[in-house]
Amino acid sequence: MSSQRFDAGVYGRRIAAARSATAQAGLAGLVITPGYDLRYLLGSRAQTFERLTALVLPVSGEPTVVVPRLELAALRQSAVTDLGLAVRDWVDGDNPYQLVAAAMGGAPAATAVTDSMPALHLLPLADVLGVVPVLATDVLRELRMVKDAAEVDVLRKAGAAIDRVHARVPEFLVPGRTEADVAADIAEAIVAEGHSEVAFVIVGSGPHGADPHHEFSDREIQIGDIVVVDIGGAYAPGYNSDSTRTYSIGDPSPEVAQQYSVLQRAQRAAVEAVRPGVTAEQVDAAAREVLADAGLAEYFVHRTGHGIGLSVHEEPYIVAGNDLPLLAGMAFSVEPGIYFPGQWGARIEDIVVVSDDGAQPVNNGPHELIVVAV
Amino acid sequence: MSSQRFDAGVYGRRIAAARSATAQAGLAGLVITPGYDLRYLLGSRAQTFERLTALVLPVSGEPTVVVPRLELAALRQSAVTDLGLAVRDWVDGDNPYQLVAAAMGGAPAATAVTDSMPALHLLPLADVLGVVPVLATDVLRELRMVKDAAEVDVLRKAGAAIDRVHARVPEFLVPGRTEADVAADIAEAIVAEGHSEVAFVIVGSGPHGADPHHEFSDREIQIGDIVVVDIGGAYAPGYNSDSTRTYSIGDPSPEVAQQYSVLQRAQRAAVEAVRPGVTAEQVDAAAREVLADAGLAEYFVHRTGHGIGLSVHEEPYIVAGNDLPLLAGMAFSVEPGIYFPGQWGARIEDIVVVSDDGAQPVNNGPHELIVVAV
Repeated sequence: MSSQRFDAGVYGRRIAAARSATAQAGLAGLVITPGYDLRYLLGSRAQTFERLTALVLPVSGEPTVVVPRLELAALRQSAVTDLGLAVRDWVDGDNPYQLVAAAMGGAPAATAVTDSMPALHLLPLADVLGVVPVLATDVLRELRMVKDAAEVDVLRKAGAAIDRVHARVPEFLVPGRTEADVAADIAEAIVAEGHSEVAFVIVGSGPHGADPHHEFSDREIQIGDIVVVDIGGAYAPGYNSDSTRTYSIGDPSPEVAQQYSVLQRAQRAAVEAVRPGVTAEQVDAAAREVLADAGLAEYFVHRTGHGIGLSVHEEPYIVAGNDLPLLAGMAFSVEPGIYFPGQWGARIEDIVVVSDDGAQPVNNGPHELIVVAV
Repeated sequence: MSSQRFDAGVYGRRIAAARSATAQAGLAGLVITPGYDLRYLLGSRAQTFERLTALVLPVSGEPTVVVPRLELAALRQSAVTDLGLAVRDWVDGDNPYQLVAAAMGGAPAATAVTDSMPALHLLPLADVLGVVPVLATDVLRELRMVKDAAEVDVLRKAGAAIDRVHARVPEFLVPGRTEADVAADIAEAIVAEGHSEVAFVIVGSGPHGADPHHEFSDREIQIGDIVVVDIGGAYAPGYNSDSTRTYSIGDPSPEVAQQYSVLQRAQRAAVEAVRPGVTAEQVDAAAREVLADAGLAEYFVHRTGHGIGLSVHEEPYIVAGNDLPLLAGMAFSVEPGIYFPGQWGARIEDIVVVSDDGAQPVNNGPHELIVVAV
């Protein structure tokens, strides 16, 4: 056990649930290379690329980790030893795909692979297995999406930590400082307020706020700017915060204030739409309808949200076309925005956890346009 | 043009060469998602994961970039605009794989994909294309491996910069300081000596030196330690340095000095084996034979080297079983090591560029065990 992961028992339960879901899906097994699924199932932070590391979970047969001998020491930091999993190590020159196939039982059988498995491993593995694998998403989706109590607890701590950072943002937003200056202060505050690492910092001032994926630049903050601040970090053992608030440097114009108030209603409508059984796209539609009624639909150019956990972006995606019914325990962002190219933008984002009573936000700072006195 | 990439003409030539190699391989086209191949071909640092960005290079038909509308602004930092490539943007809810298939011409045809394409994109793309793709490695390998003059120039600058860092390492290696303290100083020096970012820092003291993939820890440097220092960084526009030297805190024992001298001969033998037409595995064997003759073969537990460029690890891999003949312009590490578990380890690593006259090292610091006075 370390702050890098939960106790081994957590991973033992997850592996058992994954094998059960694999069997129910009519598949013979899962092959999981480094990435969030491996971290979820084993507490391993392995990041190998060209040398194959894989957790092989056959429905019939022994769970096995295939690992380059060089990576054995690092693998011991995961739950592999406590769980007593079989380990098959290999050295340069060996064929690790054959070790995977052997752990899968040796005969061609329907196999699912983790989303992040690179083509470099997927294509030779498909050759050795004799079948083209399918995505493990369908098997692992519900497990990964529905957070247990320990995970929700960490998401709440992460949410409270990022709320504390937002509470300090007005003191960083001084006219004449650059977005990069502000971002550096925020990055320091993300760690100071309890995160183990910074995941991302977006400071989009004035026209930069109209680009949803702007990070930060040398542009100086100016009086009259509207500033989008979208920030997050990982909280031990690795669950992420992600929250956006929008700031006005001095009082906003009446037009900005009016349009922002529509956005705020849209964000609230989406949060209020959340409950078990409602689909992801219905939550997206709830935000979009408020904006459409005010003639602002065309300025909302992205989905309403994304799941969050070990990864900052994961399922469920809150987007048109996703008819997935929400389940209690799912955690995702609700973050509509409006973007006026070359002028300004605004976004409001909370992470919410679905409960039987509706959305339980983990972010609880004010949702108003936050006016920074100048 | 920015310090992030070369002039657009460089990418225009690379794209033309890639299409030509694709045609020669009997393939209908390449599909390149974010990663080193995209950076090589387009100067794009895109890092999208769940939303598909792809450079589509059909042999017959127009090169096309498929990109989420949200990423358009960032894409403009690449050579896409200067080269006048077609851009097909998409929004959440669209099917980007159909855009790729359309750019490929619409009919099933043999397609190669970049090594790093995740299963998340590869499997649905295979469905829409109607064929299982092959790895683009075989098409892009020679292009990526054989560096042009501009690339070699950057590798030399990176090599000189990391040599300057190694020259400063003895002042950091003070008994009582932790490996982490030393690593922090080295990371700062990597940037101070001209790199744009730190790629990795390994400080393996005493028994930690016997783990080739140890990074650094809170272990304090002690008098008598042998310390493996393996460090590298990216040098604008993104080519990496990677060099290992081994340090002795105070005079080494006669046994250590003797075993190290064998390692030094092994490293020199491998460097001297390098010339066009020699195979990668022959270079590996040259190092291994010297160690075997001294009874040390079993302590050299990894391959002799790896290619380097935009990625710290890329082809050619200098490893048993790789019968690839070396070509002038290839750049790779020559880094044999000896590892005595629980005791100590040593490694010597230079990056060399293959020329008609043999290996041209980009690292030129002393290869001896560097004794730090105590």
